[in-house]
Amino acid sequence: MNKVKIGIIGAGRIGKIHAEHLLAMTQAEVTAISDLFADDHLRQWAAGRGIGTVLSDADALFQNPDIDAVLICSSTDSHIDFIERAAKAGKHIFCEKPVSMDVFQTQKALDVVNSAGVQLQIGFNRRFDHNFKRVREVVQGGGIGQPHMIKITSRDPNPPHADYIKVSGGIFQDMMIHDFDMARYVAGSDIEEVYAHGGVLIDPVFAEHGDLDTAIATLRFENGAIGVIDCSRQAVYGYDQRVEVFGSKGSVAVTNDYPNTAEISTAEGIFRDKPLHFFLERYDGAYIDELKQFIDCVQHGKPVPVSGYDGFQAELTALACKYSVKLGKPVKLKEVQTWPNL
Amino acid sequence: MNKVKIGIIGAGRIGKIHAEHLLAMTQAEVTAISDLFADDHLRQWAAGRGIGTVLSDADALFQNPDIDAVLICSSTDSHIDFIERAAKAGKHIFCEKPVSMDVFQTQKALDVVNSAGVQLQIGFNRRFDHNFKRVREVVQGGGIGQPHMIKITSRDPNPPHADYIKVSGGIFQDMMIHDFDMARYVAGSDIEEVYAHGGVLIDPVFAEHGDLDTAIATLRFENGAIGVIDCSRQAVYGYDQRVEVFGSKGSVAVTNDYPNTAEISTAEGIFRDKPLHFFLERYDGAYIDELKQFIDCVQHGKPVPVSGYDGFQAELTALACKYSVKLGKPVKLKEVQTWPNL
Amino acid sequence: MNKVKIGIIGAGRIGKIHAEHLLAMTQAEVTAISDLFADDHLRQWAAGRGIGTVLSDADALFQNPDIDAVLICSSTDSHIDFIERAAKAGKHIFCEKPVSMDVFQTQKALDVVNSAGVQLQIGFNRRFDHNFKRVREVVQGGGIGQPHMIKITSRDPNPPHADYIKVSGGIFQDMMIHDFDMARYVAGSDIEEVYAHGGVLIDPVFAEHGDLDTAIATLRFENGAIGVIDCSRQAVYGYDQRVEVFGSKGSVAVTNDYPNTAEISTAEGIFRDKPLHFFLERYDGAYIDELKQFIDCVQHGKPVPVSGYDGFQAELTALACKYSVKLGKPVKLKEVQTWPNL
Amino acid sequence: MNKVKIGIIGAGRIGKIHAEHLLAMTQAEVTAISDLFADDHLRQWAAGRGIGTVLSDADALFQNPDIDAVLICSSTDSHIDFIERAAKAGKHIFCEKPVSMDVFQTQKALDVVNSAGVQLQIGFNRRFDHNFKRVREVVQGGGIGQPHMIKITSRDPNPPHADYIKVSGGIFQDMMIHDFDMARYVAGSDIEEVYAHGGVLIDPVFAEHGDLDTAIATLRFENGAIGVIDCSRQAVYGYDQRVEVFGSKGSVAVTNDYPNTAEISTAEGIFRDKPLHFFLERYDGAYIDELKQFIDCVQHGKPVPVSGYDGFQAELTALACKYSVKLGKPVKLKEVQTWPNL
Repeated sequence: MNKVKIGIIGAGRIGKIHAEHLLAMTQAEVTAISDLFADDHLRQWAAGRGIGTVLSDADALFQNPDIDAVLICSSTDSHIDFIERAAKAGKHIFCEKPVSMDVFQTQKALDVVNSAGVQLQIGFNRRFDHNFKRVREVVQGGGIGQPHMIKITSRDPNPPHADYIKVSGGIFQDMMIHDFDMARYVAGSDIEEVYAHGGVLIDPVFAEHGDLDTAIATLRFENGAIGVIDCSRQAVYGYDQRVEVFGSKGSVAVTNDYPNTAEISTAEGIFRDKPLHFFLERYDGAYIDELKQFIDCVQHGKPVPVSGYDGFQAELTALACKYSVKLGKPVKLKEVQTWPNL
Repeated sequence: MNKVKIGIIGAGRIGKIHAEHLLAMTQAEVTAISDLFADDHLRQWAAGRGIGTVLSDADALFQNPDIDAVLICSSTDSHIDFIERAAKAGKHIFCEKPVSMDVFQTQKALDVVNSAGVQLQIGFNRRFDHNFKRVREVVQGGGIGQPHMIKITSRDPNPPHADYIKVSGGIFQDMMIHDFDMARYVAGSDIEEVYAHGGVLIDPVFAEHGDLDTAIATLRFENGAIGVIDCSRQAVYGYDQRVEVFGSKGSVAVTNDYPNTAEISTAEGIFRDKPLHFFLERYDGAYIDELKQFIDCVQHGKPVPVSGYDGFQAELTALACKYSVKLGKPVKLKEVQTWPNL
Repeated sequence: MNKVKIGIIGAGRIGKIHAEHLLAMTQAEVTAISDLFADDHLRQWAAGRGIGTVLSDADALFQNPDIDAVLICSSTDSHIDFIERAAKAGKHIFCEKPVSMDVFQTQKALDVVNSAGVQLQIGFNRRFDHNFKRVREVVQGGGIGQPHMIKITSRDPNPPHADYIKVSGGIFQDMMIHDFDMARYVAGSDIEEVYAHGGVLIDPVFAEHGDLDTAIATLRFENGAIGVIDCSRQAVYGYDQRVEVFGSKGSVAVTNDYPNTAEISTAEGIFRDKPLHFFLERYDGAYIDELKQFIDCVQHGKPVPVSGYDGFQAELTALACKYSVKLGKPVKLKEVQTWPNL
Repeated sequence: MNKVKIGIIGAGRIGKIHAEHLLAMTQAEVTAISDLFADDHLRQWAAGRGIGTVLSDADALFQNPDIDAVLICSSTDSHIDFIERAAKAGKHIFCEKPVSMDVFQTQKALDVVNSAGVQLQIGFNRRFDHNFKRVREVVQGGGIGQPHMIKITSRDPNPPHADYIKVSGGIFQDMMIHDFDMARYVAGSDIEEVYAHGGVLIDPVFAEHGDLDTAIATLRFENGAIGVIDCSRQAVYGYDQRVEVFGSKGSVAVTNDYPNTAEISTAEGIFRDKPLHFFLERYDGAYIDELKQFIDCVQHGKPVPVSGYDGFQAELTALACKYSVKLGKPVKLKEVQTWPNL
């Protein structure tokens, strides 16, 4: 295949960021962009970047035989429909996480994708972060022996707006879902059982929507390792994303990235700047690399690095956590597969 | 009161360490030491340090009107008896942790102590560590606002001998008991509920004795905070003792102490030495400070910094964790108070 | 002014890197590129990036009225000629460091630039590094009070090829020249006097060309501060570029950037990866930012952030260091201005 | 030899600290202490520590056949006299640095010591610091290959009182003398040549006494390495004592010790506490270890770890630095040996 021709569905913040990154890649071409609210503003933005086609309906993307692959960057509730239509049209798919709010719907969409024989990559960008990649590499290389414990800290600098909280799906599905995938990625194993609990310690608005703003999930992996994820909607000192894997021959731990290495010493103490503010700063390189690999896999028919199965497992873990909080006890992923969506 | 006159019960490793530390304190005097196996070796050791009296029976200590306080450093199963006898003899008591293997026996001993009106300090030495004291200070000073999460890592460099594992009481009662006390210390709150799980990942000998070698306990505190303790019997890189408290206005975290600050850079990478090897190295200063404060409290009638209640709470938390593992679900400390010892 | 139209002179490594960076900037346009050895390879490279004009003679650049500014990325011995021709043609100039091997020739070229009234920015890219910018910012903001000492470490991972050593101008003019500029930048003051010494400790080839491979220069600044730069052609652990400014109210220090934050703990010790390998990795962002600011200054008629005077001062300091080594004593910059080039 | 019996000359701060340390050592005994101003206060202090003899004249110490060794902790101007008298009396000697203010007087005293065949250890306590010992160990073990550069930072938290400045001997002889010894210790080589310069940037009182408060000395070692020491009388953030050795196969660097490892993260940034305040805190363990080794060497007839030659070399380097500042040029240690004292 020559350059991979891409259609982008959804021209919100993340859709535009992906577009900019694709424009700088020699092996990709942004053929078209579609958005329900395609307006002059978007048309102007696209024109300035040499993106010829702007659509308000994704259908033309699917029917365009020149387009090899689509990026689904629209709202979560539209993912399933777009995935199924794209798969049926024979387009390879990159879809933002989560695939859907209902893991059983996700499963059905994955079946469609499998039948169609197209590729589907899920946007778990953190797997491409320089720090977490190094953790995975050390663990896979046997550097710490057999993994015994996985510890993940995941804290946002600010809670989302109240409007978003209402529709987010809750802390497990919206926020910790990244960490569930990270846990599987660094442990090299699926999750077997979870126990989750938490509280509303930051803002009562979370309680109003039946959500938590602070949570801890403990994990049991199929390979015998155990783990824990702690999550907060508000770390006033900034985005806090750390991972540690402890094993029979040692441990590997990564901490945050910082805007600089300056250490300022005064009569009051020693000071350095807060970590990079939020995900756009912290995962800038990871966003580029996930797309580069997607393009490469589509172009050369290689399996994508983050599969639909990975997306499904993360969603299933989130559901198990929701059940765990509801029931006040540990929940196995196997059993939750037979329970209704929450 | 002039110098505090001390009788030490139990001349094992920790008894001797305490003796050496007391000998260097101007406000204390080691009047006598007793040990079931008092022999010439011990007599020689004592003589070399100016400790005049060596006994094979603690009774004479209790009957000696010159002795103000006793240090109970004998095996755990003898603690209760010695505490009760010391209390009835009107001696102030410093007792190594845990008070006993049966939290209800501990409660009874505390009642005797209270009736006798003597002081009882429990040997939770880590409260006196320069790092953890700083954490407590920052939290108490409001430096991180309202505490939301307490995270403790507690890993030993090597597992104990198989002989010890048999009688240790298990990972929660023997090892994590320090961390339960630390959690209460830095959170400034009692623990309400625990959920614990773990595995035997290091050595099958633990399974033979119904014990775990790797465990995670999640905590819910009475003040609304949540927490997690991870524990391993073997960290090949050395003693790993870290604490982090995260709150509404920030976080405070302490890591390990190191034998030096050297950073060695070569073509292979950047290297530094492992942390201080084990508790004797890491908590050297803490052992001294806990005794200094005990002496000071006895001398001036001030309340001791680690009370019998603190010992009781830690033991109760350990029991709740044992039940949690047994039942596979979270357990409240209130309910476990009505259950039999495990 | 609309987009700034740029002609690039010299299509070596740095010329091409600048070109790539400019291509991604919305306010710049690469109109043409010239190189003495313009061949099909270069033409193809240019075509792939939409650069229409490839020349083997820079003259056409100067005569093209559409071109607003030139980037001089050719070999050092051609800088003076190109600067003077560009200035006379009314083009703004970005020139790689050093302007020339003869500070008096540099002075003459600056005079031509001044008469022509065009802008001239020198390629001291390190001023745009996130770490060093933070140092400058803290010092300028009064965060450390009055500067007393400036300390710079500057070590390359590998020595250059023998061919290059012959024509490099020596360690002061080729390598430490960046540090002389950095010293002035963070001190906020010109240099008054230097004392330099060093040795050939890495490879005798340096001695064959009358050069040093290891050197220390101490500085006296006009504002009373003192400073020291240490420089090595070979740090086997990688590119080592650190700055510290110490003052009446504290200090600010920056260390290297790393490919990740991973800390690997094993029975052997604690490891992390070496710093970013060399200048292309370390100063990637700085190369982009220096051009962005140049474009911005040209477009809006603002003074450039690194002037010809800055280039001249760095070269003069290098000459003073060469004299200092030759004479074995400290040398004032004022006196060296009256001495012949070395 | 049984326990080493010690007489202490000079009961000022350092004399008392040494006494306390000796009292805790099983192999040493403090037989007597002498001080020009022996008063009731000192007698009481000594009685409380079981030191039987308090003298106002050191003569009785020298004549006491029971005393094996003396610690000279009196004012610098009395060192020479005491050393010579002690040597002639056949006592081993531990003497605080510097031996004297006149390196030639020092040389003469060393000759007396050598003729008498007694041991003389100089109080360069920093050699016994855990950090610097690790640097030396790495360098000696070949861990960084051939040393190329030695860098030492030495900054006090506060300047001394004006009274002391007058008689201190100046920044090189009083303060940097420790660093000259450290440089030789970690480089494993004598110093050949120095160039020093500095300024009065902290307090004009230094200028009034012909002294500097801020200085940089660059060094050339006999083994070809070069080095630099930077020194300040006032670092507002605390005692700053760092060493780095850079060589053909890497580098080893040590930084300061801290009262704890706490990192406090808030909306303002990340903070930690200042380094240990001053030499008594930082070098506490080193003071103990230097005495332990002295006792061990006296007891077993082993050569002391810091010889009179080491003291002489440090003093000679200080003199060379003073000449370098005076003459404004580099000075060889060999030539300064033929020049008068400054």
